[in-house]
Amino acid sequence: MSGDERFLKVVRGEGEADLLLVGGKVVNVFTGEISERPVAVCQGRIAGFGERPARQVVDLRGSFLCPGFIDGHVHIESSMVSLPEFARAVVPRGTTAVVTDYHEIANVLGAEGLTYMMRLAEGLPLDVLVMLPSCVPATPMETAGAVLEVEDLLPLRSEQAVIGLGEVMNFPGVIQGDPSVWAKLEAFRDLPVDGHAPGLRGKELDAYLAAGVESDHECVDLEEAREKLEKGMYIYIREGSTAKNLEALLPLVDSHTRDRCLLVTDDKQPEDLLVDGHLDAVLRKAVERGLDPVTALRMVTLNPARRFRLARRGGIAPGWWADLVVLEDLRGFRALKVFKRGSLVAEEGAFLEPRRPAPPAPGAVKIDWNGLPPLDIPARGERVRIIGVIPDQIITESLVEVPRVEEGRVVSDVSRDILKACVFERHRGTGNLGLGLVRGFGLRQGALASTVAHDSHNLVVVGVDDRDILAAARRVEAMGGGQAVARGGEVIAELPLDVAGLMSTLPLEEVAARVQGLQEAAWALGCPLREPFMALSFLALPVIPELKLTDRGLFDVGSFRHVSLYAD
Amino acid sequence: MSGDERFLKVVRGEGEADLLLVGGKVVNVFTGEISERPVAVCQGRIAGFGERPARQVVDLRGSFLCPGFIDGHVHIESSMVSLPEFARAVVPRGTTAVVTDYHEIANVLGAEGLTYMMRLAEGLPLDVLVMLPSCVPATPMETAGAVLEVEDLLPLRSEQAVIGLGEVMNFPGVIQGDPSVWAKLEAFRDLPVDGHAPGLRGKELDAYLAAGVESDHECVDLEEAREKLEKGMYIYIREGSTAKNLEALLPLVDSHTRDRCLLVTDDKQPEDLLVDGHLDAVLRKAVERGLDPVTALRMVTLNPARRFRLARRGGIAPGWWADLVVLEDLRGFRALKVFKRGSLVAEEGAFLEPRRPAPPAPGAVKIDWNGLPPLDIPARGERVRIIGVIPDQIITESLVEVPRVEEGRVVSDVSRDILKACVFERHRGTGNLGLGLVRGFGLRQGALASTVAHDSHNLVVVGVDDRDILAAARRVEAMGGGQAVARGGEVIAELPLDVAGLMSTLPLEEVAARVQGLQEAAWALGCPLREPFMALSFLALPVIPELKLTDRGLFDVGSFRHVSLYAD
Repeated sequence: MSGDERFLKVVRGEGEADLLLVGGKVVNVFTGEISERPVAVCQGRIAGFGERPARQVVDLRGSFLCPGFIDGHVHIESSMVSLPEFARAVVPRGTTAVVTDYHEIANVLGAEGLTYMMRLAEGLPLDVLVMLPSCVPATPMETAGAVLEVEDLLPLRSEQAVIGLGEVMNFPGVIQGDPSVWAKLEAFRDLPVDGHAPGLRGKELDAYLAAGVESDHECVDLEEAREKLEKGMYIYIREGSTAKNLEALLPLVDSHTRDRCLLVTDDKQPEDLLVDGHLDAVLRKAVERGLDPVTALRMVTLNPARRFRLARRGGIAPGWWADLVVLEDLRGFRALKVFKRGSLVAEEGAFLEPRRPAPPAPGAVKIDWNGLPPLDIPARGERVRIIGVIPDQIITESLVEVPRVEEGRVVSDVSRDILKACVFERHRGTGNLGLGLVRGFGLRQGALASTVAHDSHNLVVVGVDDRDILAAARRVEAMGGGQAVARGGEVIAELPLDVAGLMSTLPLEEVAARVQGLQEAAWALGCPLREPFMALSFLALPVIPELKLTDRGLFDVGSFRHVSLYAD
Repeated sequence: MSGDERFLKVVRGEGEADLLLVGGKVVNVFTGEISERPVAVCQGRIAGFGERPARQVVDLRGSFLCPGFIDGHVHIESSMVSLPEFARAVVPRGTTAVVTDYHEIANVLGAEGLTYMMRLAEGLPLDVLVMLPSCVPATPMETAGAVLEVEDLLPLRSEQAVIGLGEVMNFPGVIQGDPSVWAKLEAFRDLPVDGHAPGLRGKELDAYLAAGVESDHECVDLEEAREKLEKGMYIYIREGSTAKNLEALLPLVDSHTRDRCLLVTDDKQPEDLLVDGHLDAVLRKAVERGLDPVTALRMVTLNPARRFRLARRGGIAPGWWADLVVLEDLRGFRALKVFKRGSLVAEEGAFLEPRRPAPPAPGAVKIDWNGLPPLDIPARGERVRIIGVIPDQIITESLVEVPRVEEGRVVSDVSRDILKACVFERHRGTGNLGLGLVRGFGLRQGALASTVAHDSHNLVVVGVDDRDILAAARRVEAMGGGQAVARGGEVIAELPLDVAGLMSTLPLEEVAARVQGLQEAAWALGCPLREPFMALSFLALPVIPELKLTDRGLFDVGSFRHVSLYAD
């Protein structure tokens, strides 16, 4: 009781509230109604409705008062900033809670990475709820920084932030009864379990569902989403930086289905967070395309709260947390004020809390340069396999060409856009090095390097010559992870990602500017791709067709095995 | 895996299912759609949709296939039959799960009573999920059989059937911050917590909600229900034997609110269960009054499953439990077949499992007759307080009259319908005996006795003379609890309630017949009440206004204190 005594008195109308919000149109997500009524707050919680004495009265002047937004599925690592910076970006947009799967940092640092993030989240004016990564490593075809088996996940269940099991990407394993992934599903049976099953339909989908997976955020077409919904899945309609499914999936939402649907972002890149925003952007777009605003709001408040069993969140009701956003209107969804547990934490887009530096998470790049083999590709036979990058897609083609050979070695050939690609294992100092050739980056000179390389996040480099490849790679290592562009043996653009090689401790604005600088540098070197580093980061992902490069060499996704560079 | 291997194979379409239901119109509670499609079942679970090989094929010939019904709030004790008999009554009506609060038996036998019921539920084709009783005893004004503090409840949390904290009836305690009830609320904060707050509105309601109570099943008027819904409560619309709120509350249900509402029964008496049915009766009535049938079905399937976090229940989806009901149509809701975990357990109203006898729960009536004071009420002063029974209501009036006096003792006066009432403490042999006078039972001779007497369930007797009072009371004791009517020193009708004095081990039909026999006997003695034993059972409930009799004497609910029989 003790702590609750004053609160309870205020609720009963016997004491002075901390805060009274007057003049606001209160959005009731339970009934769909909007009505003007004062809302009292005490000790971080809603104390009730109607006039009453309060230490502070804030006039909302006809703006809309809503529950704070909850992103039901977002990877914080994609923002490339540290967690406090992520909060600084999304809280002023109206987001007061996110449900996250630390899949990326877990692939680098394992359970330690999860703990690092969970400790960092404490005290932020943003609830960061964790679905534990279910698929680390994503595949056995490459070397990740960690392996998380059910024994590794179980001790983390008792962490306060942990609320379930994150997206079960290994759907072939689930369908075929793989014991490792089934053990995890069994262990988390009583908690929410998220799915990830792009394009999965019919009996294979049924088998995936039979394992207890409850949701999907990977639907791209309406029929697929409808089948999943019909079969009892929660559908997270995703509108992020890369995957944009809102337009295709909006027709799914009707009066029968709307409480089974969420709006989520999945991945938001730094520039996008800065310019476009977070869930406010998704709401804006959804309503622009005809969705009822209160239904849209419910899909980022009450629906995620219920789906993830977040107590006392997602609505404005007595005793519930006073996580509130004041919106200018229900079209632009501009957040005028954001309250977290009753405290004003953002106003007119500005984050009111002091900037909180994040400690780097070092030791995430371990490469023994002396132990490495040379980057030479000996010429052997006539033809070689080449990865063909397709602009704006994460799938690649598998090409076969006669390479350029110099002094018995296969080398880049800028005239035909054939460049050398390297994947350096960076987690354990194994000295693993995958060498290959790629078409599509279009560099006339120089090299691009990145420690963001889904899902194992080894160090991937594409370049014209070995000098620039090594210059970019070594710079990235020196920064403790990051991205770099080298030319003529010099690094000409860089972004340190000193948190596991995935996130930066720099401010968001600086990160966004550097991302832009890296792109411009790549373009200046001749790269025609809209997002050169996005293409780079998916070059090593061996679950997306067709030909990929891992630290253990070329991988053919169709036949699901490593293949030789030499095609004869 | 092991056990799941065959299931998974069948789901993938590689093996023979146990059962294929063809020709049924499948009600999809996720989308609101109804479509004809085969449904495959394997190892008790839904294996998928569409034709496939199966050991058994059942043609549903155009009837409707729905998820089994879930009663979100029912007291099994009110059926007066043992749990297996209750299952035999409700399962053929389409009910495959109930959420129950063993409040009544807990008041008699404490935690032992809960364990008795939970063991009895095992293996029944009915899931009996338990919300632990939060308010035992209901009040400190009388002597119940047990006290359940938070320390007593906590060890029961790990029982598989336990899913939350049952209706928190002590709302004045919650509002005022009573430490005992708050400790329970704290201890169950992470599980569903049900409420019970008849008529509670405004700031008092807010205080009740602030404690974490999430639902209410006691709304009788629409405005009250609307306020509760607006403030985030789940509303259980109740249509039972006594309380019938469906008609008043149906307007609450619209496309925005329907997933916050459940249909429940709360209390169903034996005759009602036999003749009227269970949730099928509620559905019938709701649809008759204009509710969309699929919405109505959702309120007894998916909605309760979600509200109580019942995994894989409440819908027909791959991997979910094959708890299914085949309905003739969506008007009469007659259950043609009921499947529990894929097994046919009822057909055309008949329960297909062998009758399972329940062991009595003896020792529930302990009265030391020799240690009791005489039933004499010495005459003192002129006027006395009299409980005025109001037909068909559980509230009473407080009357003052000049009693009939014989040989210095106050006695019954049939000419003015003033009868003696006794409450014998029956749990602990304390010898407590409450004596009073009551108007409204209208007996010209004889006595009525019952060990069903909310909420403490002491032995309550009303009669014309002490001989019949004692004859009825001693017979009830001899039966190990029950109800009896005596006349001329002989018992002329009786119902043994050998399970805690609340439920009978006799079959439902026999219990219903005996309940009828008891009523007819009471009517024959002159009682004008439609339900004499209902009136008797509420005579001792000291939380319902206005004048009540407990084992410690007369209790005035308005002033919330015991008062003297003598009014001068």
